[in-house]
Amino acid sequence: MSLPAGPVLGVDSGGSGLRIALTDPRTAGPPLTWSSPVPVGVGPRGIDAPGLLEGVLPAARDLLAAAGAAHCAAVCVGAAGMATLGDDLHAVLPGVLRAELGARRLALAADAVTAYAGALGQRPGVVVAAGTGLIALGTDLRPGTGWRRADGWGHLLGDCGSGAWIGRAGLEAAMRALDGRDGGSPALLQRAEALFGPVCGLPAMLYPRQDRPAVLASFAPEVARCAGSDAVAAGILRAAAGHIAVAAAAACPPPGGTSAREVALTGGLLHLGEPLLGPVHEELRARLPHARPVPAQGDPLQGALRVATALAADDLTLPADGALLRVVH
Amino acid sequence: MSLPAGPVLGVDSGGSGLRIALTDPRTAGPPLTWSSPVPVGVGPRGIDAPGLLEGVLPAARDLLAAAGAAHCAAVCVGAAGMATLGDDLHAVLPGVLRAELGARRLALAADAVTAYAGALGQRPGVVVAAGTGLIALGTDLRPGTGWRRADGWGHLLGDCGSGAWIGRAGLEAAMRALDGRDGGSPALLQRAEALFGPVCGLPAMLYPRQDRPAVLASFAPEVARCAGSDAVAAGILRAAAGHIAVAAAAACPPPGGTSAREVALTGGLLHLGEPLLGPVHEELRARLPHARPVPAQGDPLQGALRVATALAADDLTLPADGALLRVVH
Repeated sequence: MSLPAGPVLGVDSGGSGLRIALTDPRTAGPPLTWSSPVPVGVGPRGIDAPGLLEGVLPAARDLLAAAGAAHCAAVCVGAAGMATLGDDLHAVLPGVLRAELGARRLALAADAVTAYAGALGQRPGVVVAAGTGLIALGTDLRPGTGWRRADGWGHLLGDCGSGAWIGRAGLEAAMRALDGRDGGSPALLQRAEALFGPVCGLPAMLYPRQDRPAVLASFAPEVARCAGSDAVAAGILRAAAGHIAVAAAAACPPPGGTSAREVALTGGLLHLGEPLLGPVHEELRARLPHARPVPAQGDPLQGALRVATALAADDLTLPADGALLRVVH
Repeated sequence: MSLPAGPVLGVDSGGSGLRIALTDPRTAGPPLTWSSPVPVGVGPRGIDAPGLLEGVLPAARDLLAAAGAAHCAAVCVGAAGMATLGDDLHAVLPGVLRAELGARRLALAADAVTAYAGALGQRPGVVVAAGTGLIALGTDLRPGTGWRRADGWGHLLGDCGSGAWIGRAGLEAAMRALDGRDGGSPALLQRAEALFGPVCGLPAMLYPRQDRPAVLASFAPEVARCAGSDAVAAGILRAAAGHIAVAAAAACPPPGGTSAREVALTGGLLHLGEPLLGPVHEELRARLPHARPVPAQGDPLQGALRVATALAADDLTLPADGALLRVVH
């Protein structure tokens, strides 16, 4: 691979904020980074493109100035809400980014793609990106076969096994305990009251909120904390692990040759630790016996830098796609 | 029971609109009725009390005039959102209703209570009111024991087995089929595409809506239609039936004496017919062997009339309760 001229820029925009990194692939130094905890808005028409530009451009110019560079060799913007961005904005965004940052090559990626690139780089396999939501993405990197996708449909239609899914199931178990219904957990009821106050007030607190999935997901750590001593909580994590493995199996490319497919889990759900990860590894062994679980190498910001680096070197093998990974030369 | 002087008024306010009936318990004639398909708003602070009065008062005056009566002997207003109405509005509402309608006695009831009274009258037992949402309410009518309640927590925290629950599970199965995940139903995918268009567009259609539970519930009839030939759809209805029976069992009063407790199912979910009701009766037999399933005698509007009639005759035995059934003499 030929070394690109100039630094490359990676952007990761998600629910927990906006992060930007600039690095020069020809040197071994750590990237220059900038971050903001304020997330860029995402609506039914995808990410708020003007809001994204407002956040990215000044910070990117500062990073370029700090690196003593006039322009980027390549840029990769990975963002939640990129896959559902309307074509009109998709047509505007690349032009502005290229003009303002002097980037010769540009990629607009769904956050699931930068999660993939961060976790596995440009190796074939499947990555489950799980936080408040959950999506599995896989590829065999063979030209023409594209991405295999499973779930990522949001907290009412799917995201099975996600933080919102686990937290919602935990709160349902708390309400069951309150009612004396089967499937209730007094331990989760106690944790719900400790976190949110009397649970009779939960509906009035939860339903008017705009960030309902995040509120639900905020209860997931309590489910993990109870799982050691509470069978209902442990059952929720076991079911979540099953859903995670099912999504991984659906998005995993078929076995190819002699080497096992790599499967990695990445994202905030990893923070639940062993109470979830133990069952996940068991479910993966059962449902994806030919895959090899590996730890994620890096996060989505590192994934964006990897995509930008590959772009600059004309060495991008991850599949381009109209929604998940748009490449502009 | 002594016969009350003057007609009694019943009100049923729910998601499908506002209905009012006036009847004279001393005569056997059918009630005078009025209805509007426009529902009264319900927010986190309960029902929109001014909106309720705006809908009820003119129509009630018209019904009184048509009956040639000057005032009501008693009024019962049953409404979704009554149980969560703030105390301030609860203090205002009875005064206005009594002053405007000349009612000596007044009851403000949760819609679950009027559903109970419509289904079982003033007999002990348990009633599951199931439409878009689901709640089970039971009583043994013994003084001091009050209502037993299960579920009714809304589509994210519960309402297990409701229309929204069934529809949501059906749409999840459709998305699973699209992804090639385990648990998918090609038949439900086909029905979802027929109803909503390409299901990739479902998240953008569903999540911005205010009436998400109603949108989810609109898919429940498709699940019932597929259940005869699709194992996934049949499994969803079987699981819903289990949840319905679990809620009924939790709210059912303990066996008392020699007669079996009556259990009734009421509400829009009955329209799903045998594909749901068959499993419901099996699950009730398994989980509530000492209860006797009976058909609901009447709907919540008839329940409101029954409560008003009992109030007028000073014969109300359903338990008064600060949230579910407030009685003002």
